[in-house]
Amino acid sequence: MWGPRQPGQRWWQRAMRRRLPVLGWLPRYSLTCLRLDVTAGITVGLTVVPQALAYAEVAGLPVQYGLYSSFVGCFVYCLLGTAKDVTLGPTAIMSLLVSSYTFHDPTYAVLLAFLSGCIQLAMGLLHLGFLLDFVSCPVIKGFTSAASITISFNQVKNILGLQGIPRQFFLQVYETLRRIGETRSAPSLHPCCTQVLPDSPPFAPGFQCCSLPSARNALVVLAAGLVAYSFQVSGSQPLMLTGSVPRGLPPFDPPPFSKAVPNGTVPFGRMVQDMGAGLAVVPLVGVLETVAIAKAFASQNDYRIDANQELLAMGTANLLGSFFSSYPITGSFGRTAVNAQTGPQCTLVLLSLAYLTSLFCYIPKAALAAVIISAVIPMFDARIFRTLWRVKRLDLIPLCVTFLLCFWEVQYGIMAGVLVSGILLLYSVARPPIKVLEQGVLLVQPGSSLHFPAADHLQDIIRDRALAASPPRSVILDCHHVSTIDYTAVVGLAELLQDLHKHGISLVFCSLQDPVLRALLAADLEGFRHFPSWEEAGEAAMRHTHGCWQAGAPREPGE
Amino acid sequence: MWGPRQPGQRWWQRAMRRRLPVLGWLPRYSLTCLRLDVTAGITVGLTVVPQALAYAEVAGLPVQYGLYSSFVGCFVYCLLGTAKDVTLGPTAIMSLLVSSYTFHDPTYAVLLAFLSGCIQLAMGLLHLGFLLDFVSCPVIKGFTSAASITISFNQVKNILGLQGIPRQFFLQVYETLRRIGETRSAPSLHPCCTQVLPDSPPFAPGFQCCSLPSARNALVVLAAGLVAYSFQVSGSQPLMLTGSVPRGLPPFDPPPFSKAVPNGTVPFGRMVQDMGAGLAVVPLVGVLETVAIAKAFASQNDYRIDANQELLAMGTANLLGSFFSSYPITGSFGRTAVNAQTGPQCTLVLLSLAYLTSLFCYIPKAALAAVIISAVIPMFDARIFRTLWRVKRLDLIPLCVTFLLCFWEVQYGIMAGVLVSGILLLYSVARPPIKVLEQGVLLVQPGSSLHFPAADHLQDIIRDRALAASPPRSVILDCHHVSTIDYTAVVGLAELLQDLHKHGISLVFCSLQDPVLRALLAADLEGFRHFPSWEEAGEAAMRHTHGCWQAGAPREPGE
Repeated sequence: MWGPRQPGQRWWQRAMRRRLPVLGWLPRYSLTCLRLDVTAGITVGLTVVPQALAYAEVAGLPVQYGLYSSFVGCFVYCLLGTAKDVTLGPTAIMSLLVSSYTFHDPTYAVLLAFLSGCIQLAMGLLHLGFLLDFVSCPVIKGFTSAASITISFNQVKNILGLQGIPRQFFLQVYETLRRIGETRSAPSLHPCCTQVLPDSPPFAPGFQCCSLPSARNALVVLAAGLVAYSFQVSGSQPLMLTGSVPRGLPPFDPPPFSKAVPNGTVPFGRMVQDMGAGLAVVPLVGVLETVAIAKAFASQNDYRIDANQELLAMGTANLLGSFFSSYPITGSFGRTAVNAQTGPQCTLVLLSLAYLTSLFCYIPKAALAAVIISAVIPMFDARIFRTLWRVKRLDLIPLCVTFLLCFWEVQYGIMAGVLVSGILLLYSVARPPIKVLEQGVLLVQPGSSLHFPAADHLQDIIRDRALAASPPRSVILDCHHVSTIDYTAVVGLAELLQDLHKHGISLVFCSLQDPVLRALLAADLEGFRHFPSWEEAGEAAMRHTHGCWQAGAPREPGE
Repeated sequence: MWGPRQPGQRWWQRAMRRRLPVLGWLPRYSLTCLRLDVTAGITVGLTVVPQALAYAEVAGLPVQYGLYSSFVGCFVYCLLGTAKDVTLGPTAIMSLLVSSYTFHDPTYAVLLAFLSGCIQLAMGLLHLGFLLDFVSCPVIKGFTSAASITISFNQVKNILGLQGIPRQFFLQVYETLRRIGETRSAPSLHPCCTQVLPDSPPFAPGFQCCSLPSARNALVVLAAGLVAYSFQVSGSQPLMLTGSVPRGLPPFDPPPFSKAVPNGTVPFGRMVQDMGAGLAVVPLVGVLETVAIAKAFASQNDYRIDANQELLAMGTANLLGSFFSSYPITGSFGRTAVNAQTGPQCTLVLLSLAYLTSLFCYIPKAALAAVIISAVIPMFDARIFRTLWRVKRLDLIPLCVTFLLCFWEVQYGIMAGVLVSGILLLYSVARPPIKVLEQGVLLVQPGSSLHFPAADHLQDIIRDRALAASPPRSVILDCHHVSTIDYTAVVGLAELLQDLHKHGISLVFCSLQDPVLRALLAADLEGFRHFPSWEEAGEAAMRHTHGCWQAGAPREPGE
C-alpha cells in the first residue's frame, strides 16, 4: 500500500508524510480495505486480550495493566509508525524486563513507561536511530532464541501449578524440577489443548480470510474459562485462577512521580535510582524489538522502515500510554503475525475492559501460560547455528555469547553480544586483508580502506617483507581497493617512505582513488610517487632499485 | 643497531630475543659503542637528576621520590624494552596523573606503581598490546599539546613564587592572573636564563659528541643553586627553595598494602577504592606515552616496536620500582631526545642520591619550573591543526575534543578522543562509499567490505534507486572491492533479492572475490546469480528484465 516515494512532491509534503505516515495511506483507504481490516482487527483483538492478561502476569503486575497497556499504543502507532503491520502493546520480552526493574509494582512500571517514552522521543529527535544498525543479526537471533526458552520455562510453574518459584532462570529450572512432585494434575491438561489445536483448524470458518492461528488463543482461553467456571459452579476448584479484575477504563492521570509508602513517600529521584539500568535497557530493547519486527514486515509487504520515525512513534506511544496506566510497550513478535489494521483491535480491548473483566476471573493461569508459550516458541531458531557455521563462522561468537548470557540476564546478553560483534568489527578494520605478491618487486594490495588502527599493521607487514630478502626489494602499494584514508594512516605511510628510503629502496603507489590521492598530496609526503597502473609503477620501482631514484619521479624526494 | 630478523634462527632463539631484546644487541656491543654511550649517559643523567626533582614536585611528592623513581626503570627497560633509545622514569604527564590520584601521599603513589605494573604485565601476557592501535594520531597530538600547556602553566606559580594555587587548570589560570601582583621578583629571573641559553651553547665543549640542550638543564640548576647558596650565605633568602632531601638509596621494601593513620589503618581495599579510575588511566597512559615515543625513535633509528613487549617491560619496571619506593614511571618525551645508553645515567642518579642530596636543598623551585617548562614546550604542535585541515578534516574532531577536554581532566580528554575517533571509524564502516551508475541497468559498487552496520544502508540505497524509475531497473551489484562479508549483510542481500524479485526485477552479482562467493553460496540465497564481469552480468540482467528470468540463470530461483 505504501509504494516508493513520489518524485513530484514538495519537500514539506515529503516531510509531513515522513513524520505522519498515516497521510500516505489514508487518502487511498477504500471500503474493501476497511472490510479486510475489520476482520483482521477482530482476529488480532482475540489474540491481544488473552495475551495482554498473560503478559501482565509475566511482568508481575495485576492483569488489568496488560489491557491498559494494549490500547493507546495501537492508536498512536497507527498515526506515527512506519510499519502499518506492527501493533504496539505489551510483549513477552518487555514484560520480562519490566518484571526485573519494577519490583512487581504498577507505580514503578507506569513511571518506567513515561521515562522510556521520553528517552525514545529524545533519541528520535536526535536522529540516533542509526544506532540500531549496530545490533547484528546473530545478536538478535541469540537474544530471541534465549528469551523464548526463558519465557516458556517461566510459565512451566503456572502449568504445573507450582508457587514460590524464583525468577532467575537457573534457580527456576532447579526449583521446578525439584518440586515437580507437587504438580497439580488439572492445570497441566489445558496447555495440551492449545498445543494440540492445529495451525489451520477446521472450526472457526468465519475467519478464513485471515490467518487462523491467532484466533486459537481466544478459543483456548474461552474453553479453559468455561471449564473453570463449571468447576466453580460444582463447588470444587482445582485450578489456579486469574482472580477478580477491576472493571472499566483506566483513568487519564499523569504518571506517578512519587510513591506513597506507609512511612512517607518515595521521591522521584529515589524511584529513578531504583530502576537504574532499566532506564537504558527498556527503551533500547523496546525499539530494537519493534524495528526487528517492522523490518521483517517491511521486506514482506514492500515498504521501508525509518528507525528514527519508529523511535518517535514508540516514544509517543509510551509517553501517552503512561497517562493511561500503561507499562512499557513495544511491537510484538507473535501478535503482529497477522496483517492487521489496529482500530478494531483497540475497540475490542476497550470493550473487554468495559464489559468483560468480570468474566476474566475464571481464566485459569495455566491457560494464559499456554498462550504465552505458544507465542514465544516460534521465536526459537535452532537452524541459525548450522547456518552460521556454513556462512560465517566468526558470527557464531556473538550468537553464542548473547544466547548464553541471556539466560543469566537478558540485558547483559544483549549488551555483551553488541560489544563482541563491535570488537570483531573493529578487529576486521584493524587487520584488513593484505595481499602480498612477489614479482621482482613486492606488490602489496590492502583489501579495504586504511583506517588508523590498521596503520601500524600495514607498515609492519611491508617493512618486514621488503627487508626480509637480500638485497631488500622495492615495494608497490596497490591502493586499488582503498577508498578512504585517515591522517594516522597517512602518517604511517610517510614514516614507511622515510624508512624504506633509508634502506635505499623505494615505495611507489599505484591505482590511487581520487580522495586518497588528494589526501596524500595534501600531506606533502617526502619521496611520494604514484602511477595509474602497477605495470608503470613496477618499472619505476625497478629503475630506482638500479640506482636512479632521482630520475623519472614525478616528485623528487627532498631529504 | 637492531636490524631486521635473521632468517636462519630457530624459533626458541627468536622467542628469547623477542622477550629479552638485550640478547639482540649485547653480543655486538663494542668499545666504541661503550665510549659513545658513557658520554651520552652522563649527558642524560645531567638532565634526569634535575627533571626527577622537578617532576616529583609536579606529582606533589617529596623530591627524593623523583630520584627513587629514576633508576630501576632504566635497568629493567635496558633488559626488556624493544626501543633502546627510550629511558623510563618519572615524566611530566605521569606526574600530573599521579598528583590527581594519590592525594600527594607517597604511600598511595608507590602502591599505584605496584598495581599499574601488575595491570601492564597482565595486559602484556594477554597480548592486549593491539589495543594501542586504537589511539589515533589526532588523539595523541591533542593530548600532548594540551598537556604541554597545562604542565607549563602549572609551573608559572613556582616561577612567580605564588603559593596556594588550585590544581584545576581554569581555576589556576584565574587565580594566577588575579594574584599576579604578589609575584616575588627574584625567582622570575631564573627561568629567563634557561630560555636564553641557546640550543647549542658555545660553553661545555666536553659534550660535543652528544646533543647539547640536555646538559643545559644541569647547568641552569647548578647556576641557580649557586645563586641561592650565595643568598643563603649572605643571610637573606628571597627564593623558594626545594628544602632538605633525605640522603641515601631507598630501602628495598615491598610496596605498602595498607596505610597507618592516626586513628587506625586504611586497609588495601579502601586504598584501591580511593584511587578509583587511576588504576585504569595510569597504566594505559603510561604505555601509550612509552609506545608513542618508542615508535618515533623506532622509525628514526630503524627498528620495530612490539607493543606487547613494551607492556611487559613497563609492567616489570613499575612492579620492581615499587619495591624501591618508585611512583609510576613511563618513557619520557624530553629525556629520550638524546640517543642514550642507560647504564651511566642510572649510575649518576645513584651517585646523586648517595652524595648530593644535601646540596639539592639549595635548588630554587623556580629553576626546576624552568626545567619542566623547557621540557614540555616542544610537545605543543600548533601546525597539526592546519595539517589536518588539509589532509583529513574529519580528524579535526577527535583532535579538538581531546585537546579541549584535556584542559578539564587529562584522562577525560584521552577517553573522549578515543571514543570519538572510534565512533567516526564505526560510522565510516556503517556508511561505506557506494557508487551508483545508471547504464540502462543500475550498476552499484560498494567501496569496501560489507559489515553488519552497512547491511540496511546498502539495501535502502539499491531499493530506492531501482524502484525510483518507471519501469523499475534491474541491478548489478559489483562486489569488486568487497573482500569480506558477514552474516547480517548476507541476510540483507537475501531480503533484497526477494524484494526486487517481487517487483519483477533482477539483482545479479559480479566480480565476487572468493571468500564472498563462498559465503553467498553457503547461504543458499533464492535467485542468486553471479558473473565474473559486469558486462556479462549486464547482459543477463537485461535479458531478465525482458521477461526471461528462468532462462540462462546459473541457479534458478525457487520461490
